[in-house]
Amino acid sequence: MSKNVLVLPGDGIGPEIVAEAVKVLEWVNDRFGLNIELNEGLVGGAAIDATGGPLPEATLNAARNADAILLGAVGGHKWDKLEMALRPEKGLLGLRSNLNLFANLRPAILYPQLAAASSLRPEIVSGLDILIVRELTGGIYFGEPRGIRTREDGVREGYNTYIYSEPEIERIAHVAFQAAQKRNKRLCSVDKANVLEVTVLWREVMTRVGAEYPDVELSHMYVDNAAMQLVRAPKQFDVMVTGNMFGDILSDCAAMLTGSIGMLPSASLNDQQQGMYEPIHGSAPDIAGQGIANPLATILSVAMMLRYSLQAAAAADAIEDAVSRVLDAGLRTADIMSEGARKVTTAEMGQAVLKAL
Amino acid sequence: MSKNVLVLPGDGIGPEIVAEAVKVLEWVNDRFGLNIELNEGLVGGAAIDATGGPLPEATLNAARNADAILLGAVGGHKWDKLEMALRPEKGLLGLRSNLNLFANLRPAILYPQLAAASSLRPEIVSGLDILIVRELTGGIYFGEPRGIRTREDGVREGYNTYIYSEPEIERIAHVAFQAAQKRNKRLCSVDKANVLEVTVLWREVMTRVGAEYPDVELSHMYVDNAAMQLVRAPKQFDVMVTGNMFGDILSDCAAMLTGSIGMLPSASLNDQQQGMYEPIHGSAPDIAGQGIANPLATILSVAMMLRYSLQAAAAADAIEDAVSRVLDAGLRTADIMSEGARKVTTAEMGQAVLKAL
Ligand SMILES: CC(C)[C@H](C(=O)O)[C@@H](O)C(=O)O
Ligand SMILES: CC(C)[C@H](C(=O)O)[C@@H](O)C(=O)O
Repeated sequence: MSKNVLVLPGDGIGPEIVAEAVKVLEWVNDRFGLNIELNEGLVGGAAIDATGGPLPEATLNAARNADAILLGAVGGHKWDKLEMALRPEKGLLGLRSNLNLFANLRPAILYPQLAAASSLRPEIVSGLDILIVRELTGGIYFGEPRGIRTREDGVREGYNTYIYSEPEIERIAHVAFQAAQKRNKRLCSVDKANVLEVTVLWREVMTRVGAEYPDVELSHMYVDNAAMQLVRAPKQFDVMVTGNMFGDILSDCAAMLTGSIGMLPSASLNDQQQGMYEPIHGSAPDIAGQGIANPLATILSVAMMLRYSLQAAAAADAIEDAVSRVLDAGLRTADIMSEGARKVTTAEMGQAVLKAL
Repeated sequence: MSKNVLVLPGDGIGPEIVAEAVKVLEWVNDRFGLNIELNEGLVGGAAIDATGGPLPEATLNAARNADAILLGAVGGHKWDKLEMALRPEKGLLGLRSNLNLFANLRPAILYPQLAAASSLRPEIVSGLDILIVRELTGGIYFGEPRGIRTREDGVREGYNTYIYSEPEIERIAHVAFQAAQKRNKRLCSVDKANVLEVTVLWREVMTRVGAEYPDVELSHMYVDNAAMQLVRAPKQFDVMVTGNMFGDILSDCAAMLTGSIGMLPSASLNDQQQGMYEPIHGSAPDIAGQGIANPLATILSVAMMLRYSLQAAAAADAIEDAVSRVLDAGLRTADIMSEGARKVTTAEMGQAVLKAL
């Protein structure tokens, strides 16, 4: 039975890095006989330019029918002036929400070869390996009511709603506890339960679900402290779980601890193992089209996709191995360049991974 | 005319560190003839134990009549099981809100003597000097409706409201722009305007108010990127301004970059220069009563108080000078201890500052 992968290059450096990742995917498809069929679609700014909206019906339908989606990145200054409902980001948010991709897995791993790229002292980050589990289809990102209104006294105000139901918290809790079971069995749930009622419920549900996972050690931390602890001593964490907004902030912070966000993939899953895979970094419009972006985060997103949605763990291993060997060989794109290494372009890096395979 | 200072030691290490800061305040009061009158009050867990609530009427009245408030810290595991309205934090939040202390100034400064305490590479943080201006009486901390409810279908949900009105944004914008004018004239406003409508209004108002400050260079940054940039290259920032929740997270992250949150003071001001001054760190119940906490953040909070609320800049300078000389002399409490320095207790550190004065 063939598997269906939808490729959405998106904006900025998206098309360049996705092109390299697709070559890698095609190679393992052949080599491992995976029977994967690739289709391409429009999303974000690219879709706005072609169709007037960030998430065309055709893309959404193709996404619904795909086993997995490989996304580059969306957004750019060009579309910054559009009203929110028409912006590139809405394409991404629409995919997450329509496909119910509630579980966002964001590893923050320091590649030993790239220790020098971190802004933190080597002893603080060497060996770093955190997994952040971010709820992705709820919370303040999607809460209603929302908008900008004029009060009766003529004063304008903007408002959003931070809301979670018990079942929403339960299902992300299970994902997080199960992820912790496969790792070092420690889960830190991040909230602001000393101020926000919605996170009082979050903490209560996490604790209750935790009783089903007696082998996992659950702790709770306020979000401000979590931001501090990530900077102070990130290796204290194994798996962290948090809501959409806090997860957005903390996962970017954690990713930056490694100094190489050009290296980090992510997965967004629903409860049928359908998933969207994308690099953690953005569309970087400032360097788009120059052929200098790092394709490794996208290539590693392909590996995640093979493992989580396409049941092809051997192919995933092969890709991760190849990336590691390319780093060992001293090849670096500009973002991870350091003294003594060999600077390569996006295409050269992609080529090197293929060769290592 | 005499000035009135209300001292609220609070919980955990609060009483120990405030005791040292009060000695310093009394010394400059005498020496500079400042005519300051000190009163003491209960807040937080200490108030709960004595009166049943975290913010007794007597404390609130004394606070209203004070020119400035010196606060230690509130909270501790002992009161963790209480419902939210009765917890120590509500004492702090109630003071902020009742006194309209909307402008929270949180400097993140790296003391050159303590460069080794940072978890970041020295070249990334040496000379770091950021001011975070956090809105403190609005946003999701105080937004209504809020709570935990059971929906008609029997499902429980928690909810909070993130809300800002135009005047609320305007007044914090003015504080931030004026702070930037006194520094390096660069202001970065942090929002999530690609997702949250409330911050679309925030960005719009910041931009409009910015037109009144043509000498200040205004930029905007998404909160996830801000968290990354603080870790990657914090010296790119001069003044940052943001809402209550993002400010809570980013200011703790920024403080931790210095590695010495035991050193950092903060001010919370209303529009009559009335202010509450407190260390950035918490009540640290784990080390309370051991006499090892660092009193310098509280002593430096006294300096901020003298400068902002008591018009006694010379006394403030004297304190800051004395602290710097004590650090030069190699005295360190446990939290900032490093090889070759001399480890001192809370009281010894306070004594040393007095002697340096
Ligand atoms: C582009 C934006 C809407 C998105 C988010 O905030 O979720 C991005 O920052 C991310 O983390 O994937
Ligand atoms: C104690 C808590 C309510 C408080 C806050 O979240 O504002 C604290 O974290 C702070 O930053 O002063």
